[in-house]
Amino acid sequence: MDLLRNSMKEIASFILKVAEHLDKYQVEKLIQYLIEARNREGKILVVGAGRSGLVAKAFAMRLMHLGFNTFVLGETITPRIGPGDVVLAVSGSGRTQVVVTVAAAAKKAGATVIAVTSYPNSPLAKLSDCVVRIPGRTKLAEETDYFARQVLGIYEPLAPLGTLFEDSTLVFFDGLIVELMERLSITEEDMRKRHANVEGI
Amino acid sequence: MDLLRNSMKEIASFILKVAEHLDKYQVEKLIQYLIEARNREGKILVVGAGRSGLVAKAFAMRLMHLGFNTFVLGETITPRIGPGDVVLAVSGSGRTQVVVTVAAAAKKAGATVIAVTSYPNSPLAKLSDCVVRIPGRTKLAEETDYFARQVLGIYEPLAPLGTLFEDSTLVFFDGLIVELMERLSITEEDMRKRHANVEGI
Amino acid sequence: MDLLRNSMKEIASFILKVAEHLDKYQVEKLIQYLIEARNREGKILVVGAGRSGLVAKAFAMRLMHLGFNTFVLGETITPRIGPGDVVLAVSGSGRTQVVVTVAAAAKKAGATVIAVTSYPNSPLAKLSDCVVRIPGRTKLAEETDYFARQVLGIYEPLAPLGTLFEDSTLVFFDGLIVELMERLSITEEDMRKRHANVEGI
Amino acid sequence: MDLLRNSMKEIASFILKVAEHLDKYQVEKLIQYLIEARNREGKILVVGAGRSGLVAKAFAMRLMHLGFNTFVLGETITPRIGPGDVVLAVSGSGRTQVVVTVAAAAKKAGATVIAVTSYPNSPLAKLSDCVVRIPGRTKLAEETDYFARQVLGIYEPLAPLGTLFEDSTLVFFDGLIVELMERLSITEEDMRKRHANVEGI
Repeated sequence: MDLLRNSMKEIASFILKVAEHLDKYQVEKLIQYLIEARNREGKILVVGAGRSGLVAKAFAMRLMHLGFNTFVLGETITPRIGPGDVVLAVSGSGRTQVVVTVAAAAKKAGATVIAVTSYPNSPLAKLSDCVVRIPGRTKLAEETDYFARQVLGIYEPLAPLGTLFEDSTLVFFDGLIVELMERLSITEEDMRKRHANVEGI
Repeated sequence: MDLLRNSMKEIASFILKVAEHLDKYQVEKLIQYLIEARNREGKILVVGAGRSGLVAKAFAMRLMHLGFNTFVLGETITPRIGPGDVVLAVSGSGRTQVVVTVAAAAKKAGATVIAVTSYPNSPLAKLSDCVVRIPGRTKLAEETDYFARQVLGIYEPLAPLGTLFEDSTLVFFDGLIVELMERLSITEEDMRKRHANVEGI
Repeated sequence: MDLLRNSMKEIASFILKVAEHLDKYQVEKLIQYLIEARNREGKILVVGAGRSGLVAKAFAMRLMHLGFNTFVLGETITPRIGPGDVVLAVSGSGRTQVVVTVAAAAKKAGATVIAVTSYPNSPLAKLSDCVVRIPGRTKLAEETDYFARQVLGIYEPLAPLGTLFEDSTLVFFDGLIVELMERLSITEEDMRKRHANVEGI
Repeated sequence: MDLLRNSMKEIASFILKVAEHLDKYQVEKLIQYLIEARNREGKILVVGAGRSGLVAKAFAMRLMHLGFNTFVLGETITPRIGPGDVVLAVSGSGRTQVVVTVAAAAKKAGATVIAVTSYPNSPLAKLSDCVVRIPGRTKLAEETDYFARQVLGIYEPLAPLGTLFEDSTLVFFDGLIVELMERLSITEEDMRKRHANVEGI
């Protein structure tokens, strides 16, 4: 069980470093896009494949609790997207084919596209209006190698595959929710009132 | 391949009989509940397990195309439900435990509950404000045996399990969509404008 | 309510015609691909967007009841696909971008690709090893216009958008299940034993 | 943005404490149940509602990469469960009605039930064969108040609702994956080979 505990500590320590190295300018831009969309009742459509998609859904659920008009690509109720709407795409590599395809279609339809990715030079990042870098994948490209190794000091993580990216992104989104609560003057009690009261699985 | 073709014909013929034996009063009530909910911007939450859940989702997608404020229980964006909202529960047997649990919770929360089921005396039907009977399951209880056998002439269908109920319910819902298009003066072109333009899987 | 009933009859009558005009050769090929995959314990991965995706899922659930090793693209447990596996892609237009992207990736990975579509000349159909044509969309292209109008006598259906394709495909798949039950000597009782006993929504 | 960063640090610091206070005996029991199920090719069915359900799915995806025979309740391919199978239920409160209902049904069907919850005295925990406590919800009951306040020193977290539980549980599961990799001698490369190669959304 030491390995289990050490892995948890590795992930938590990594998240602490990610919190220190957020790009204030891009995160502030993301916050403004979200708040403006909420003010004009625009839609927020979250997009992601695999575990990144699950993290995007967890964020979407909280956005709904904050009164955002939120949707999840691939679920039953996916509306038409256009100017004034925001598409938030989550992909560690920034190369997940369907995510890039959807983001490009959204961009063409006039929506604002926000990328959350480890790779600011990836195809997804390049077509996005705002790019929040969450590091985590250390083996794909030189640029992240450099960032993860030199800045964050991560060499050979215990956590396999995209785990560091996915877990850091979940916690980043949850921090963002607290920031949005403050800026929008929404209390936990307000959120509870929007929480589902009949739950499926 | 004769069996394939004969099964398709059995199902289609069954649907023709279902169309003939709809209870006008209950269906009209269902239509009124839906239109009133749309007028006051209430939510429509669809609920179902297994293949009945898939049929419910297919209906929810079309309701969205008609401008209804629709949600699917179990998906990411499931809002709080209360007075003025409609919960549409689909269950052939009317006994699927989670569906009954959710419908009871919705009822308690003040929502209107509509059941689409083969069994007007089932637990789901008993707690609902409106019950549309779609026959199809012939082996569970005397009442449906009687209806399916005497009225519809169905004895031993080729189609296994809940197939007749599920397929008939899908086509019933699709007929209902055409009826709602007419009553709400919504054209196919209007629906196309609300159709998702960036699609996931 | 006459419109509701007439729409149901239109759909059911259309399904009867579809049953008459199935391409025996292609359907037999599809059956062989499925049975061979089952014999060698290969995977069947179903793929579809929107309501076509729901129809694909309804079929996947029944394949599971028949003991097939089935998966649904976009759900949590989506395995790696390769030679010996079958990807079944459902798209009325045969042009749904993510479906075509996925089918092409599956083809490249060595899987057999089966298309169920209204358009035998669509991009999806062209890259597939087997194409089952289910008519239904009458407004997209000359070829289907001709088939739907001249052969099936469909001009201006009441049912909007892809409804005729989706409902016919569901019933086609359900007929296919009966055919497979016969060929594999599987009874309804065998299927019931594989049915989920703890159900979510 | 200070609040965003502070919330991330609060969550990460909480996870570090959770790692220190895991109950070795219960976690070891959980590991044994999982490994034994894998050895005899039993099924692992994960269950959860809302964000806890998403965390359960993220774990299920990794179990699949480790070669477990994993399923997610509520998705299309949900098999019958019985003796020899494991149901892993995630619920912070241990009181989510559908989760408790499903866990009880699984128990009755002969499956082993594992609860991951903040409340060792909750209805879910009481019916389970193994209970892993992940703290996080500080406002529901005296017992957790005591644990969270006295042991973990958490009084009024910035993170709303179930966030601390959900994020800690995700990281706990990810640590568990590393532990299982070691015990089963599975490398990251082995996992990559089981990773989906055609991805939906």
